[in-house]
Amino acid sequence: MMMDKLAPLTLLAQQIFKDLRAMSPDGAGVSRPAYSSVETQALDYLAAFARAQGLAVDADAARNLWFSLPEHRAAERFMVVGSHVDTVPEGGNFDGLAGVVAGLLVLIRGREKGLRLPVKCLALRGEESAWFGSCYLGSKALTGQMTAAELAAPHKGDDRSLADHMAALGIDRAPIAAGQPLIALERILGYVELHIEQGPLLVERDIPAAVVTGIRGNIRYRSVTCTGEGGHSGAVPRAYRHDPVLAMADLLTRLDDSWLHILQTGGDLVLTSGVVGTDPARHAIARIADSISFSLDIRSQNTEVLDHMRDYLHEEMADIARVRGVRFDTGPEIPAAPALMDDTMVAGLMAAMGRTGIAPFSMASGAGHDAAVFAQAGVPAAMVFVRNRNGSHNPREAMEISDFMVGTAIISAYLEAADT
Amino acid sequence: MMMDKLAPLTLLAQQIFKDLRAMSPDGAGVSRPAYSSVETQALDYLAAFARAQGLAVDADAARNLWFSLPEHRAAERFMVVGSHVDTVPEGGNFDGLAGVVAGLLVLIRGREKGLRLPVKCLALRGEESAWFGSCYLGSKALTGQMTAAELAAPHKGDDRSLADHMAALGIDRAPIAAGQPLIALERILGYVELHIEQGPLLVERDIPAAVVTGIRGNIRYRSVTCTGEGGHSGAVPRAYRHDPVLAMADLLTRLDDSWLHILQTGGDLVLTSGVVGTDPARHAIARIADSISFSLDIRSQNTEVLDHMRDYLHEEMADIARVRGVRFDTGPEIPAAPALMDDTMVAGLMAAMGRTGIAPFSMASGAGHDAAVFAQAGVPAAMVFVRNRNGSHNPREAMEISDFMVGTAIISAYLEAADT
Repeated sequence: MMMDKLAPLTLLAQQIFKDLRAMSPDGAGVSRPAYSSVETQALDYLAAFARAQGLAVDADAARNLWFSLPEHRAAERFMVVGSHVDTVPEGGNFDGLAGVVAGLLVLIRGREKGLRLPVKCLALRGEESAWFGSCYLGSKALTGQMTAAELAAPHKGDDRSLADHMAALGIDRAPIAAGQPLIALERILGYVELHIEQGPLLVERDIPAAVVTGIRGNIRYRSVTCTGEGGHSGAVPRAYRHDPVLAMADLLTRLDDSWLHILQTGGDLVLTSGVVGTDPARHAIARIADSISFSLDIRSQNTEVLDHMRDYLHEEMADIARVRGVRFDTGPEIPAAPALMDDTMVAGLMAAMGRTGIAPFSMASGAGHDAAVFAQAGVPAAMVFVRNRNGSHNPREAMEISDFMVGTAIISAYLEAADT
Repeated sequence: MMMDKLAPLTLLAQQIFKDLRAMSPDGAGVSRPAYSSVETQALDYLAAFARAQGLAVDADAARNLWFSLPEHRAAERFMVVGSHVDTVPEGGNFDGLAGVVAGLLVLIRGREKGLRLPVKCLALRGEESAWFGSCYLGSKALTGQMTAAELAAPHKGDDRSLADHMAALGIDRAPIAAGQPLIALERILGYVELHIEQGPLLVERDIPAAVVTGIRGNIRYRSVTCTGEGGHSGAVPRAYRHDPVLAMADLLTRLDDSWLHILQTGGDLVLTSGVVGTDPARHAIARIADSISFSLDIRSQNTEVLDHMRDYLHEEMADIARVRGVRFDTGPEIPAAPALMDDTMVAGLMAAMGRTGIAPFSMASGAGHDAAVFAQAGVPAAMVFVRNRNGSHNPREAMEISDFMVGTAIISAYLEAADT
């Protein structure tokens, strides 16, 4: 669709964003808890909206909603455009919802202009880990990837299990617990997800949207502990110190240097230690700390880079432990493999981006998305990012509707040209 | 006195240490709170012990105790050997008390052998900051250096002021509040303090005792804050990050490098960041931290080194702030000037150490002591450190009685040779 034909669709999108924002305020921002009545009300609103637009509406066994043109309701194979409707607590209105609205606009536009391939819009539940500790619950249930542990996981607010919350919504857990896809996955030709960018790259580069090449995998350590030896801050000479704080500083500085080198040689990497602390029960200004704990979150699109960083981390910890007489304990590693987007779909979206009049631009996704769950299930998947200020998971998310319409136009242009 | 004549004195010292340990247990270690009835009972015990040994006992207006040979009770000028009797909570038995016991042994030995100069032993109250936030309360009261703020400071346990606690012990606060010395300080020819070493140097070097050349001064910042910009750990490329954790690591690593250089060029320095933490209300493993806070405690015997480190700290913070787009705020600096020991006394103690048959060895004190208060009041002051395992301010303090007797012998040998 051409940009100048978007005005009526823009108004529809603005209406949906406005109405759903008004339905789920939490004082600070927006809250649509996973598998809650608020999430259900948002889906009910979308169903009513879709029906008013002449679209067919169906629910799968996990109560995700599927929208389609009436003539495609029973299509054997179809493309899917979707995302999730839940949010984190005190979140923004666009993280997730934007991708669902994009799917609806594609269908409404397709209703007028026709669609070359059958397309369904998918509104998923429970993508955010803020509520039950695990993420991608709706897409995992749909694709048969939900574990028993995830079904048993307690809600962070009321401590009741996800299975309980599902039961309260009338969802039958049996087919989900069986670990079988709720629809035959080979029916899905491809999954396309529009999502706000959760970093600043598109703002910094002044580009309205981008095609995503892959979702970074990560290796995470919740709490690396460096243990040294406490002592009087004034009375222990440097040669006899085993200071875990300076050892940690040394390690983080070495990792930071290595990060810069990897970027300079073309590698993809981000590295964060977001949680750092000495022990409040024992630390004091005039004491060398006994120990310090810190998290590590290392992400890359590339498994080789992650493997390299793991090796480098352990080498440097061993070196610093030897030189400084401290001990590092990483605790368990929590790994997540990178999810590569489908090459053919990425190429198609890049070409479509060019046809909308914007120089094709691609980037990695640092955050995880439902698209990764589809990719892991063997469904070709791709994503389009939309420029967004102030990150996500906060009320200050700021996506311009014009940028959103560019992202939607890229997906429409792609679907108009896409072949099976 | 020669080492082989020490056996009876050793037994006396062991008895005092044992009796006072038994009088002030707190479950974990020893507690003799500053200006408490427990502290008073310890002083009463020492007074009774001293009287039984034929010594004269007096109290000053701040209820510190003074012991002397009867013939020196009214001496116009005298040397002082002393330290404090209070401890931190769950502390050890030797930090402070050892210096008082050393003074008593010097007098008992002097009673038999005579003393060239009049000597008084001083048992001070309230040296530890653990109780009222400020340290050296007994020696500050004695030398007229106690401030109104210190008198008004609340006890960390019951929140009642130091003045209240003094009143409960029958101490008249008027002369202390007046800020005048409680005795004419020019009467004190010199102040010598034996103290356990609170670091590991003498253990590591296998030396029983040392003469202290100076007490390190310090510049301290309770909480330096580095503020950057939060963001998704996966979604913000390195070029757009303003990570306060890596900025802090960078700063500490630069300070550590500079420390090593200063040591290699003969300077005296210790540097500690003992309290470090991101904000528990905001931090998360998958978030770049908004900010991090950390303490800095920088100590040196040498004012020029402290001034250099302050300049270097601010230069490096400015450089890192520029490169990484973060902001440092040190908060108020809490300075304490170094206290140099009296050159003549240090030389005399070094010579005395040689006469006891041990190669003279000198070192800096990293912790503060009452000796610094006397030095600041213009009284020539010096210290002898005794080898001690496991640091201080904990029940695991481990001073060997034979090392204590070496330290005491050095002071006796010094006083036997000392001139006015």
